[in-house]
Amino acid sequence: MKIENILVVSPKFKEIEEIINKKEIQKNIRYLPEQEMNETHLDWADAFVAFNLTSTYDYSKVKWVHSFGAGVDSFLLNKQWPDNVLLTRTICSFGQRIGEYCLSYILKDVQFHELFRDFKKQRKWQQKTPKLLSEQKVLIYGTGEIGTKTAQILASFGVVVYGVSLSGKQKHPFTEVFCVDNHYSILGEVDYIINTLPLTEKTAILFNKSLFSRVSNIGFLNVGRGLSLDEHALLDALNNEDVRFAVLDVFTTEPLPDEHPLWSHPNVWITPHISAVTTSDEGVDCFIETLRNIEANKPLLNKVDTNKGF
Amino acid sequence: MKIENILVVSPKFKEIEEIINKKEIQKNIRYLPEQEMNETHLDWADAFVAFNLTSTYDYSKVKWVHSFGAGVDSFLLNKQWPDNVLLTRTICSFGQRIGEYCLSYILKDVQFHELFRDFKKQRKWQQKTPKLLSEQKVLIYGTGEIGTKTAQILASFGVVVYGVSLSGKQKHPFTEVFCVDNHYSILGEVDYIINTLPLTEKTAILFNKSLFSRVSNIGFLNVGRGLSLDEHALLDALNNEDVRFAVLDVFTTEPLPDEHPLWSHPNVWITPHISAVTTSDEGVDCFIETLRNIEANKPLLNKVDTNKGF
Repeated sequence: MKIENILVVSPKFKEIEEIINKKEIQKNIRYLPEQEMNETHLDWADAFVAFNLTSTYDYSKVKWVHSFGAGVDSFLLNKQWPDNVLLTRTICSFGQRIGEYCLSYILKDVQFHELFRDFKKQRKWQQKTPKLLSEQKVLIYGTGEIGTKTAQILASFGVVVYGVSLSGKQKHPFTEVFCVDNHYSILGEVDYIINTLPLTEKTAILFNKSLFSRVSNIGFLNVGRGLSLDEHALLDALNNEDVRFAVLDVFTTEPLPDEHPLWSHPNVWITPHISAVTTSDEGVDCFIETLRNIEANKPLLNKVDTNKGF
Repeated sequence: MKIENILVVSPKFKEIEEIINKKEIQKNIRYLPEQEMNETHLDWADAFVAFNLTSTYDYSKVKWVHSFGAGVDSFLLNKQWPDNVLLTRTICSFGQRIGEYCLSYILKDVQFHELFRDFKKQRKWQQKTPKLLSEQKVLIYGTGEIGTKTAQILASFGVVVYGVSLSGKQKHPFTEVFCVDNHYSILGEVDYIINTLPLTEKTAILFNKSLFSRVSNIGFLNVGRGLSLDEHALLDALNNEDVRFAVLDVFTTEPLPDEHPLWSHPNVWITPHISAVTTSDEGVDCFIETLRNIEANKPLLNKVDTNKGF
């Protein structure tokens, strides 16, 4: 495939232009903020590069769409993707970033950071032995790039890591991978649940009342998508202590609305969708590598299966 | 060496007795709480097993003294150790435990747990990208069992780890090991300092005003011994922000006295000497393994060099 005219739409379009200019890629590139985007730019372009699809344009006019993000649900969900348009996404340090994010909150828990914080306020010297990671069991939803890297990090400490995927196909380093349609039996066994799944029709509201009724005293971490979680079912599970604490980086509505009850729950930790940020440098590197692979007809590891949704 | 009569002195003497009884080691063992210990028991014993030397007895009466702890400063510091008495110490999961403890507080920092905690209180949605561990530089004092295991854990994330030791001898996985007498040049380069050193005459008040004047904006973690740190020099360094935060598991006086200013400093995290706890099971396992190695004349990895002090 030959690409000449590339349209880059991003709120950070100036920063991205500066970075790409240093790479001398010899293409015609237009850089726009989202509010200046319109259909006529797509008539000109061979390729469209953006973080989100903010409005519905006719993307069948281009040959290739590349997402600066890892999640492409805004490109696909409830939309018909044109068969002849290649869709690729950014894969960079997401797995490492999300792995370190998750590990930080699991360690915070096993090392009793909150307890010792409270003791300090009271000037109270009372010992409690931290738990070793090797005594923990974690269930990770999603055995792709991000879920597997997170599993590798945890398994390197001796954590027993189970996986859940659409296929249930076994994969290293998971002790066992369960099919999402048939995984409830493992829920009672684990200390932590981590969701890394992309948002698709199959993963919407996967974490619901029925699922939370089968766990006991767990830590729940969501670094996938907010719409995979029924936030009110989670609040109920927190209140009846089936979920001991939740760490949420993604939400049904982002930014999380001011009046949302998650803000005030004492056992909820909130981060503003930062567990897997693409820096502009990393985003550009991945885009250029993809461009070169396309032009050289090389296999694309970051090509999206638009039927599966990731 | 043949050992028949063993004296075990511990506040947990009953729990230890129960565990040892299951192991069928075929020795004569007396179990005592510390307050029932006296010199006559040493006349009977070949071996003495305890966590601390709480009073000065004549230990030259026994052949072997084994410490349930990793640190043996209470056995050696300011005391003359009898040449003909073997001294061994417990080595078990200390390295892993201290490594996970240190990693938890470094991750808490790079993942901005405190910032996002404050934002949550204010219902404030403001992004800040966590730093990757691979962008961090850590200086570890002590390149023995504990320092090296901690370095291995950090290095597995791409952290650049420097070491400081008495000898300055290079060792994997440290990028460079400096001799304690000549290491100030590296102080300005690092993001975190971890002390794992045993307390000896050479390491007393090593972390003093002079050392802290050479660091900039660091996190300081002490999992070694409290007496290696000048606590008032640390408080000064915290106040002028040469030290950004401190995580202290050990103190000059333990329990930390009620009126101590460390309790109230906002950038100090206090834990009550729990980073490397010996569980009774682990302590007994190490003791029995040492006993068997002694009787089989095998090399002892946990033998203390009583001149060096560890």
